[in-house]
Amino acid sequence: MTDKRKRPALLFDVDGTLVDSVYQHVLAWHDALLEERIDLAVWRIHRRIGMSGGLFVDALARETGTVIDAERADRLRRRHAEGVLSRLGQIRALPGAIALLGRLHQLGVPFALATSGWHETADHMTRLLQLPPGVPLVTRDDVSHAKPDPDLFLAAADRLGIPAHECFVVGDSVWDLLAAQRARALSVGLLSGGYGRGELDRAGAYRVYEDPADLLAHLDEVGIRVGAD
Amino acid sequence: MTDKRKRPALLFDVDGTLVDSVYQHVLAWHDALLEERIDLAVWRIHRRIGMSGGLFVDALARETGTVIDAERADRLRRRHAEGVLSRLGQIRALPGAIALLGRLHQLGVPFALATSGWHETADHMTRLLQLPPGVPLVTRDDVSHAKPDPDLFLAAADRLGIPAHECFVVGDSVWDLLAAQRARALSVGLLSGGYGRGELDRAGAYRVYEDPADLLAHLDEVGIRVGAD
Repeated sequence: MTDKRKRPALLFDVDGTLVDSVYQHVLAWHDALLEERIDLAVWRIHRRIGMSGGLFVDALARETGTVIDAERADRLRRRHAEGVLSRLGQIRALPGAIALLGRLHQLGVPFALATSGWHETADHMTRLLQLPPGVPLVTRDDVSHAKPDPDLFLAAADRLGIPAHECFVVGDSVWDLLAAQRARALSVGLLSGGYGRGELDRAGAYRVYEDPADLLAHLDEVGIRVGAD
Repeated sequence: MTDKRKRPALLFDVDGTLVDSVYQHVLAWHDALLEERIDLAVWRIHRRIGMSGGLFVDALARETGTVIDAERADRLRRRHAEGVLSRLGQIRALPGAIALLGRLHQLGVPFALATSGWHETADHMTRLLQLPPGVPLVTRDDVSHAKPDPDLFLAAADRLGIPAHECFVVGDSVWDLLAAQRARALSVGLLSGGYGRGELDRAGAYRVYEDPADLLAHLDEVGIRVGAD
């Protein structure tokens, strides 16, 4: 007999995990920085995607030795958001993402979404996912600190009414996995955001899969039994 | 006394190694594929950048189960090239690239460039690098097979008049490092194309650095003595 209460809940990151939007975010940041005459190599931007925008700007200032005051930071964030919105036509759900969420819904596995992005862009992303009704979505607007702070995942677990340490976090970036550790959740890394497997392993991933389709094919490895035990 | 003949020669990849153009290539391919209604996740395109365009299209057909005839393959390549050309304004030399090549020139270390790209785009990239005169540039137009076949690096070594096994290949992608192995050259991997360190290690890198600036700071590790021994 299956004990339903032993089934884990899942807390999903969005960009790079369910939606194929990381590279568009990366080049939107790059464009915004070039407009401000801040030269930062694109791969370094890539490695910062998914972390809090505030920490991103702090790290940027440190790495480039540039002074970024509040006004300039606001301008960067606004241009980044505009850049992403102008690229929405190129953004798709990742392979298996819709099927995975549909399957979890069908199995009665609780899950929520938690993104470092703001509501404005997150809404577009979740529409691509054809979310079943009632799935909690926590965005940057809802918490004081984004990843790698654990707040987003803690808030998402709270919305499900399940302690974070009984959840699996699913994310594509090192920041997701670090935030998961700080929330005392186990984590699953996906390669679909463009990080290498070794980077996700070293950030504490319990398991690494290629993309949502690959996770869907291995649900039993995170304790979700789909057939007889 | 330094034995000049023991100094290695260097064979450089271009995109992602000296010029910050990988992510623009990636999204140019993505756009071209979307126009042909071929859905391929962006990170998978990223992991194919730097390999021969022919092999890229073959792999693509295999992974997506799509039939890609010669006409469609040509259309894809043309749209990709147009996409890259339209993004040239966003492309910069990578940090340290110009200084690194200048330093090698000053030290009398032989070096050449070898890219899987075609002359049309390669010319734009090398202009960004302010190449000293006389540096050989081998492009896809010059060889029958691009990376991971060794032909590009073998041709580049040949232009220098130095056996490939006495050269270091410097590249950002797994395909550079595999091609280096097949040319019996040692290789240096750079993170500046967006691969993870573990991916480059596993492809046989003798050493991995962040970017050209980081390689410049560690030239002694590849046997280039800049001071007294």
